[in-house]
Amino acid sequence: MARFYAVVPAGGSGTRLWPLSRSNDPKFLHTLAGGTSSLLQATLARLTPLAPPERTMVVTGTAHAAAVARQLPQLGAASILVEPSPRDSAAAIGLAAVLIAKQDPQAVMGSFAADHYIADKHGFIAAVRDAITVAEEDLLVTVGLRPTRPETGYGYLQLGEKLDVGVGMQLRAFVEKPSAQRATEYLASGEYLWNASMFVWKVSAMLAELEMQQPQLYEGLLAIAADWDTPQREDTLAEIWSRLPKLAIDYAIMEEAAARGKVATIPADIGWHDIGDWNAVGEIAAVDERGNAQLYPASLGGAELRTVDAHGCVVAGRAGRTVAIVGLDDVVVVDTADAVLVCSRSRSQQVKQIVDGLDVDDPLR
Amino acid sequence: MARFYAVVPAGGSGTRLWPLSRSNDPKFLHTLAGGTSSLLQATLARLTPLAPPERTMVVTGTAHAAAVARQLPQLGAASILVEPSPRDSAAAIGLAAVLIAKQDPQAVMGSFAADHYIADKHGFIAAVRDAITVAEEDLLVTVGLRPTRPETGYGYLQLGEKLDVGVGMQLRAFVEKPSAQRATEYLASGEYLWNASMFVWKVSAMLAELEMQQPQLYEGLLAIAADWDTPQREDTLAEIWSRLPKLAIDYAIMEEAAARGKVATIPADIGWHDIGDWNAVGEIAAVDERGNAQLYPASLGGAELRTVDAHGCVVAGRAGRTVAIVGLDDVVVVDTADAVLVCSRSRSQQVKQIVDGLDVDDPLR
Repeated sequence: MARFYAVVPAGGSGTRLWPLSRSNDPKFLHTLAGGTSSLLQATLARLTPLAPPERTMVVTGTAHAAAVARQLPQLGAASILVEPSPRDSAAAIGLAAVLIAKQDPQAVMGSFAADHYIADKHGFIAAVRDAITVAEEDLLVTVGLRPTRPETGYGYLQLGEKLDVGVGMQLRAFVEKPSAQRATEYLASGEYLWNASMFVWKVSAMLAELEMQQPQLYEGLLAIAADWDTPQREDTLAEIWSRLPKLAIDYAIMEEAAARGKVATIPADIGWHDIGDWNAVGEIAAVDERGNAQLYPASLGGAELRTVDAHGCVVAGRAGRTVAIVGLDDVVVVDTADAVLVCSRSRSQQVKQIVDGLDVDDPLR
Repeated sequence: MARFYAVVPAGGSGTRLWPLSRSNDPKFLHTLAGGTSSLLQATLARLTPLAPPERTMVVTGTAHAAAVARQLPQLGAASILVEPSPRDSAAAIGLAAVLIAKQDPQAVMGSFAADHYIADKHGFIAAVRDAITVAEEDLLVTVGLRPTRPETGYGYLQLGEKLDVGVGMQLRAFVEKPSAQRATEYLASGEYLWNASMFVWKVSAMLAELEMQQPQLYEGLLAIAADWDTPQREDTLAEIWSRLPKLAIDYAIMEEAAARGKVATIPADIGWHDIGDWNAVGEIAAVDERGNAQLYPASLGGAELRTVDAHGCVVAGRAGRTVAIVGLDDVVVVDTADAVLVCSRSRSQQVKQIVDGLDVDDPLR
C-alpha cells in the first residue's frame, strides 16, 4: 500500500457563526464541537491514525498561519503551507499535491476540510481506508455522506454501480444544491449522498487530471514546486500564485472526471456535520437537563449560564461573564469581547445578513 | 401659601431591571426613560418648578450617597441625607419631615420616589399644586394615578366624596395589591386609583400623626433632629437610627389616618410609570421603524444595534459593543460589563428569579 498523506485546507471564515467566527478568527480555529479542541485540532487528531504529523499538511492563508502554527505544535513548520492570497480549493489542494508528488510520486493523499465534525471517528478511518483501496485503482475517490434529512444547503453525489474492487461505488455525477422538493426525492431514493469535499486519490492520478483539464494551473503549480526547496521559493510563489486560476476543486477536475467514469465514492454513515450555523452547533453539543447547550461552560473557562424557563438554547460566552436567559426557548446567545448575538435557532442562517451589513473594513467582520 | 419642600427617598435596587440595576448601582441612578438623565436626575428636574434646590432633600443609603451627590451637583451637601442603614420609608420620610419642621414649622412637604417616570410634567406640577392646596387644610394628601389597565402589581386608593375645598377627593382606604379579577373590577368602577406613594402634607400634620401612631419613631426622629446641627449629629444618628421601627409610611400612618378621614387624594392622569421591569422600559421608550427600542443608542454612548427580522425588542448596551438580533420579536437584551440578559418581554418580571438565584455576596446582585 502506498504511503498516505493527509491534507487539510484551512480557509473560509464561517460567517454564519459570527460573532465568534470572523474573517480574522475563522470557524476552524474555534472550539465548536465540545471539549477543548478547535475544529482544526480535532480534524488533525482524527487523521493521525491514517497519517503521522510528518505526512500531514495544512494549507492556510497569511492571516491564519500563525494561529494554525500555534494550535498545531505537532506539525513541523514545513507542513504548514501558506498561500500568499486566497485562490480557492483547486490551487490550495493542488499545491499540496505537487509538493507531495515531489517527495513520493506514488503517494495517495486525502483532503479534508478543517472545520467539519465527525461523531464516529472509527467509521471515518474505515471509510478513508476504503477510499485508499479504491484510489489504488487510479480512481479519484470522494467520501460521501448518507443524508439524514432533505438538506438544501449541500451539493450531492449521485451514485452509480458498485465497483468491482469490492468497496465503493461509481460516482455518476456531482449535483448542485437542490430545491426542497429535489432534496426530498434524493433522500427517498437512497441514490444520493452529501458531498462533503472529502477527496482521496493518488497524487499522480489527480495531477494527470489537472494537467489535462487545467493546464495553466498545473504548469503554475509545477513551477512553484520546482523552486520550493530553493531560496527562490517565496519569489516564485509570489510571482505565480496570484495568476493561478481561482477554481473550486469540484469544478476544476472532479465533474468532468466523473463524466469519464474516473470518480468513485465511498458511502459513509459517520455522524458528519459541517456545523454550518449556530443551530448546528446546538445539534452536536451536549445539553443540560433543560436542553440548553453551553459551548464554553464556566468549568472550561466560559461564562456562567443562568436560566429561568429557558430550554433548547445554545450559549457561547466568555470567562467572567454571566449569561442569563429568561422565558425563551431555542435561542442562540453568543457573547464575545465586542459583540453579542441573540438569534432564533431556526433563523441561524440569517446571521450571515448581519455580517453582510457590516462595512468591509469593520473588525467585527 | 406655606413654603413647599420636596423630598426624594432614593432607595431600593430594582432587581427586575437586572443586570443594569443592582444593589450597588440601583435603578434610580440609571438612564431608563430616554435622554441622558438618570431617573433620579429627572425626578429632581421635575420638582424644580415646585421647590428650588435649597428646599429639596434626597434621602439615600450609605452605598449610594456619593453617586447621588455626583449626579445632583445642584444640591448642597446638607440636602443629601444619608441613612446609616435602611429603615424603610417611614423613617426616611420622617427624618426629612423633622428636619424641615426645624427650619420652618409651617412648611408643606411632598415626597416623591426617585425612580418613577412621568410623561406629563405640567400635569404633575398641577396635581402637586392641587395637593398643596388640600394639604393647607391639614389633610395628608396623596397623588393617585388613574389606572390604564387592570394592574395587579400596585396597591390601590379607594376614592370617597369630593372635598369642599374644590379640588381633590376624600380617600376612603388604601387597598392591597389585588387579584386579576379585582383589578379588572377596580378599573371598570372608576373609583380606584394606583397608589404611587406620592405624598403631600404639612410637616406639622404628618408629625402629629407620627406622634400619635408611632410614638417611638417620632421620639427617635426628634432626638436626631435636636442634635442635627451640632457636633453630636453622627453619634446621635448612629445610636438612635438602628433602633427605629422599620415601617413603610403607608402602614405607619396613612392607613389609620385614612380611616379617620384625614387623608385626601388628587386624581391625576399624567403618564405615570414606575418602570418596574424591562417590558415597562420598552413601553415608555422611543422606538425605531421596527418597534425596537434602544436605551443607549450609539449616538449617546451606547452599543451599535443591528437587526435582521427583529421587532419590538428592548436593547441596552455599552459603547464599543455591537448587539445583533436575528429573527426574534419582543425580546430584551441588556449587555453590561459582566453580564448579558436575554429575556422575553412578556416574562420580564421573572428576571427577579435570576437575581434571587445569585449568592447574597455576588457582585452581580
